[in-house]
Amino acid sequence: MIKKVSILGSTGSIGCNALEVIDSLNHNGYDIKVISLSTNSSISLLSEQIKKYSPETAIIADKSAYKEFKSYFSFPETEILYGEDSLSEAAGRDNYDLLITALVGFSGLKPTINAINSGKDIALANKETLVVAGKLINQLIDKNKLKLIPIDSEHSALLQCLTGEDINSVSKIILTASGGPFRTKSLEEMKSITVSDALSHPNWKMGKKITVDSATMMNKGLEVIEAKWLFRTDVNKIDVLIHPQSVIHSMVEFVDGSVKAQLGIPDMKIPIQYAITYPERIKSGHSKMDFNLFNSLTFEAVDYERFRCLKIAYDVTRDDSTSSVVMNAANEIAVELFLNGRIDFLSIPGLIEKELDRHSASSDTDLENIINIDKETRAYLKEKYSK
Amino acid sequence: MIKKVSILGSTGSIGCNALEVIDSLNHNGYDIKVISLSTNSSISLLSEQIKKYSPETAIIADKSAYKEFKSYFSFPETEILYGEDSLSEAAGRDNYDLLITALVGFSGLKPTINAINSGKDIALANKETLVVAGKLINQLIDKNKLKLIPIDSEHSALLQCLTGEDINSVSKIILTASGGPFRTKSLEEMKSITVSDALSHPNWKMGKKITVDSATMMNKGLEVIEAKWLFRTDVNKIDVLIHPQSVIHSMVEFVDGSVKAQLGIPDMKIPIQYAITYPERIKSGHSKMDFNLFNSLTFEAVDYERFRCLKIAYDVTRDDSTSSVVMNAANEIAVELFLNGRIDFLSIPGLIEKELDRHSASSDTDLENIINIDKETRAYLKEKYSK
Repeated sequence: MIKKVSILGSTGSIGCNALEVIDSLNHNGYDIKVISLSTNSSISLLSEQIKKYSPETAIIADKSAYKEFKSYFSFPETEILYGEDSLSEAAGRDNYDLLITALVGFSGLKPTINAINSGKDIALANKETLVVAGKLINQLIDKNKLKLIPIDSEHSALLQCLTGEDINSVSKIILTASGGPFRTKSLEEMKSITVSDALSHPNWKMGKKITVDSATMMNKGLEVIEAKWLFRTDVNKIDVLIHPQSVIHSMVEFVDGSVKAQLGIPDMKIPIQYAITYPERIKSGHSKMDFNLFNSLTFEAVDYERFRCLKIAYDVTRDDSTSSVVMNAANEIAVELFLNGRIDFLSIPGLIEKELDRHSASSDTDLENIINIDKETRAYLKEKYSK
Repeated sequence: MIKKVSILGSTGSIGCNALEVIDSLNHNGYDIKVISLSTNSSISLLSEQIKKYSPETAIIADKSAYKEFKSYFSFPETEILYGEDSLSEAAGRDNYDLLITALVGFSGLKPTINAINSGKDIALANKETLVVAGKLINQLIDKNKLKLIPIDSEHSALLQCLTGEDINSVSKIILTASGGPFRTKSLEEMKSITVSDALSHPNWKMGKKITVDSATMMNKGLEVIEAKWLFRTDVNKIDVLIHPQSVIHSMVEFVDGSVKAQLGIPDMKIPIQYAITYPERIKSGHSKMDFNLFNSLTFEAVDYERFRCLKIAYDVTRDDSTSSVVMNAANEIAVELFLNGRIDFLSIPGLIEKELDRHSASSDTDLENIINIDKETRAYLKEKYSK
């Protein structure tokens, strides 16, 4: 089976894992060609990837990183582009079949839309795309009769549990959550959380934005919204359950009382491979689940008081309005401010709530409006915190 | 949807639960008619069931119980039959669609074969049928293009995990086992196990035969063999994992490293309903899984030294021979002898092993040979232990 794949965000954790999966699939009879790669500014890793995969195109989003790249490296066989617009442009080309989008935050939206409009199946690791524009993305996916396959371990688990089942027989979607590094900390203790505390996740190694989102549990909130759009279900049917071991990746409860779960060691290569080979499963050398090692799986209820970000996400997604765009932009800025030492950890939800209060929600969720609201929110907050 | 169902073994635990499921489905838009019911000797319960469901036929396997029934009850609308042959005869009739077979032990074989030969789908709770004649049953099911749907919670779990999946992508079937009441007892302590110790199962309320089988873990051995035939897989791909809470009913590991599990509260009504409505799921009032209650799931390895019966079952099923018939008959007799106080708990595996040693295994697994070997084994053991 020949497949031409583009990976946006190829130097991040998901991107690197995706390339490893492609190596292993190509070892096992697949013939996957990498067409485009991209980085924000990790030019040295990108150059190694170009050397190994000889893509047609490589994109460096950050302009000064691009300039540095050009002065160090030369790849005559690969077209080197720069800037965010190039991501969208390359995503809209006709030279590949499947887009793996592992971009960070809102920046994933436009390239994904361009890829869909040009008839590409999407393997989605960038949950913010569905958070800000789930309705629009689903409309475009339907119109173009494409597949939108999740890479997130939770949503991959749900897809696997739903395989062969009727979505109408689902009574509850249970997203599991590790609870992050502060699961057992009191609100008082949470006041003094430092950046380095927040960046050490117990189970998964990930980028900074998603690691902080995991610590605030906004990541789980984004996943609730993502699940709503991916599986086209009422958000009231989506529950979050703390499961500190991150072995059960998520579960589905059916109307007859039966529950299905997908489990595995915490290794992103499993859901990434599933997204690429879906609906097939291909033999892999990934470590297997060892129940002697993971011999106790526990569950706890979520504390929405200590993890207000998750509550915000639930509240925002009950109406399909522009509020989710504001929440997402405010969260991205809040995380940046926290990482730069400008606000403390517990101020993140408050900042988002204030922005939501300032915003009059509208049901006009077309692309232009989404982009404008995102821009306005960021500009306002940057101005506010520039002093 | 109209469905005509016969339940053999309707006064046992599975049979009573099946009738409750039928009540609930009929409350929810189904129209299920009960055609036949049967009991071994629980005539008073049978009479209540006849009153409520007005079946065309009711069968009492035990002749003296039949005589007693006739002297107490009169149901002019229902044909009352007696004897084991009547079970087979009624199962072969054309007046129904689905046989729920909840008979105990070897006695389930002939009625099931008659039902298959007359074109009925089978909902199977009687695992011994597949243990002694799996190859034959599969041949007949294929020939008649029928469905053979498991009722056992473990096999129902596996069926649910395999829905929508390719059986060739399965790398391992993981049957979970509670471990029974003696999971934590030492071999020394197991020497003094009494009948009443063995009859108190921690998670499930069941008949005597299966409760003792659970205590020796022969029940799990029978399930290993059942799984081999149901899912047509190599026995080397079937593992048993101790899971004391009986919440995860079984799991499937796939070649890509992903594992799927089916969970639920320990309530037989869920798998029974699934077997009746398969592949549909129907809303039910069964209690839902509560992860606040079942907040810790643990796993342990099996100790094959303390639970030799399970090892015997594995050994017996590696070749598809008549050994499994001998093992099953010897086990049925051994359980009876234990229940009657004639042998002690730890003598059960030894008795079975001796019988297997006496037997020259053959690959001739046609019905006649199976019946003869079963008879011969029982006759020999009854004679041996009659003194």
